[in-house]
Amino acid sequence: MSESASFSAEAYFATQPAPQLLAQEIAGVKEFVARQAAQNRNVVLVTSGGTTVPLELNVVRFLDNFSAGTRGATSAEYFLKAGYAVIFMHRQFSLQPFSRHYSHSTNPFLDFLALEGDGPGADTVGITAAKRADEDLLAVLTAYKRVQTAGTLHTLTFVTVDDYLWLLRAVSQELSVLRRRAMYYLAAAVSDFFLPRQKMSEHKIQSGKGSLHIEMDQVPKVLKPMVEEWTRDGYIVSFKLETDQRLLIPKARAALERYGHQVVIGNELHSRKVQVVFVERKRKPMTFVESWLRIAPAPSAAIHVKEIEEDIVAELLRRHEAWIGEA
Amino acid sequence: MSESASFSAEAYFATQPAPQLLAQEIAGVKEFVARQAAQNRNVVLVTSGGTTVPLELNVVRFLDNFSAGTRGATSAEYFLKAGYAVIFMHRQFSLQPFSRHYSHSTNPFLDFLALEGDGPGADTVGITAAKRADEDLLAVLTAYKRVQTAGTLHTLTFVTVDDYLWLLRAVSQELSVLRRRAMYYLAAAVSDFFLPRQKMSEHKIQSGKGSLHIEMDQVPKVLKPMVEEWTRDGYIVSFKLETDQRLLIPKARAALERYGHQVVIGNELHSRKVQVVFVERKRKPMTFVESWLRIAPAPSAAIHVKEIEEDIVAELLRRHEAWIGEA
Repeated sequence: MSESASFSAEAYFATQPAPQLLAQEIAGVKEFVARQAAQNRNVVLVTSGGTTVPLELNVVRFLDNFSAGTRGATSAEYFLKAGYAVIFMHRQFSLQPFSRHYSHSTNPFLDFLALEGDGPGADTVGITAAKRADEDLLAVLTAYKRVQTAGTLHTLTFVTVDDYLWLLRAVSQELSVLRRRAMYYLAAAVSDFFLPRQKMSEHKIQSGKGSLHIEMDQVPKVLKPMVEEWTRDGYIVSFKLETDQRLLIPKARAALERYGHQVVIGNELHSRKVQVVFVERKRKPMTFVESWLRIAPAPSAAIHVKEIEEDIVAELLRRHEAWIGEA
Repeated sequence: MSESASFSAEAYFATQPAPQLLAQEIAGVKEFVARQAAQNRNVVLVTSGGTTVPLELNVVRFLDNFSAGTRGATSAEYFLKAGYAVIFMHRQFSLQPFSRHYSHSTNPFLDFLALEGDGPGADTVGITAAKRADEDLLAVLTAYKRVQTAGTLHTLTFVTVDDYLWLLRAVSQELSVLRRRAMYYLAAAVSDFFLPRQKMSEHKIQSGKGSLHIEMDQVPKVLKPMVEEWTRDGYIVSFKLETDQRLLIPKARAALERYGHQVVIGNELHSRKVQVVFVERKRKPMTFVESWLRIAPAPSAAIHVKEIEEDIVAELLRRHEAWIGEA
């Protein structure tokens, strides 16, 4: 490990360019936060989906992190249902609350529609909903329209790990005016590595020259400045995803010790839809408290299964309430 | 470049595992091809979207190629419109014909729906289409239902470059029964590099140990065995995407000389929606023929713009017809 391989957050923001539309996007966030504050709503920032690391300035190739955005999109729905306002900061094309139920492959949208009338010429008369009595769609649509009317969902989009880091800092700073009433639910799968602008090649890396060598630097650990500088007493929830279950608790504890935030939710790749562990640090006496949250695995790929995010969010609402009460 | 960095197609298929469901998927393709052959339809295999290269066996991180799948999904629609049957082999979650017009961000599906009735209790009565007279949706839906009725679209999904290579070989072999009536439209953005199974780490690569080093091997050049072994006189169209415009024609010519297929369509990343170049090799005398195809750039992000794929497909239909006539 060379010295240059590790950027502090400060060095990172001093050397890497900000996304072009950042100021504009943050103006939108400021307005949203003020509106929610005026209505005495708690606000949660939900980050969701993976980040990319472009290997070229004219991007063709990039390193990516696996994440469809299920955890974030699903959780956002439950936060909204509980009356929170949500800033949903997600990877472009990752799942979103409500529309997540209808991907192009699962329940394709066009299959819900039929042409009105039958026989020749039917295609000229109009469109009608094919499954008028579809209860799932009705429930989703009702919740969606309620949120639209209430104006409690604000969506932001990122693609690269650079977009993500700049947005995270700026949104956190805006949200910090809410002090303890702000929650930060960091479910995005953020790359641990990045390629500094100065090391990128301008054009597409050419093949035909043997094997590909990539060397990347570490992404700065932003939880520390997030706790110490960007937020003020906000309730910060981070996630730890591992493929080796035995690493979950030691790594969650290490993160809490290093960054000093409120809770780490640990999950293992293959069991993450049925169990997670909440890891917290108690101050007096100095101990770690772990509590597992489990749901019964779905008997099949049926539609009406319990989603673990419902319980995760319920548990966090309880803890956030207590956190607000401690002030 | 070490010797081991370069796999022949033969060595690749001998050492890398096949996707689990391959046999099942190919049975579906065989049935589809037989049905189209019985109806005397030309069949085009359209590949679309990027491929991933997993860095770990329990995948969290992967290398990806930029591609939303616009070229492939759009072209597939025009092939279908022209009466071709289409095997649409695409990256999971990349755009698909018809539904591509309605992403979660562009024209979101749920915005087309409204709850029936107004006022309290309205959310219990049902669903109706919000924009009954929407002409764009009507045109898309009509084309979609026609294709469903005709049974001329067969969709296959890949994620990794391994999935892609195995599927490509097997589908090409099935399609080869159609001889010259088969077209292969290879629009997918396929990785030039991969990580052999034997070199993958089992678990998530741990950060905190300095910078990341990745070393990958070259993906075998499959166009050569495709021309010589997997297909029989099929019309093969490959794509060349570059960010440096000056590389387009030399690289297209080199590909034609090396692999001996019918045409390379060259496109530059930033201008690819308004111009492409068709590069062909004539045999007597041995010359290359380049012809540019351009459309007027859209004045704005308006919805009703001409799509260059309409002209690309029209040009290919003409050339494919001539190719069939030469037999």
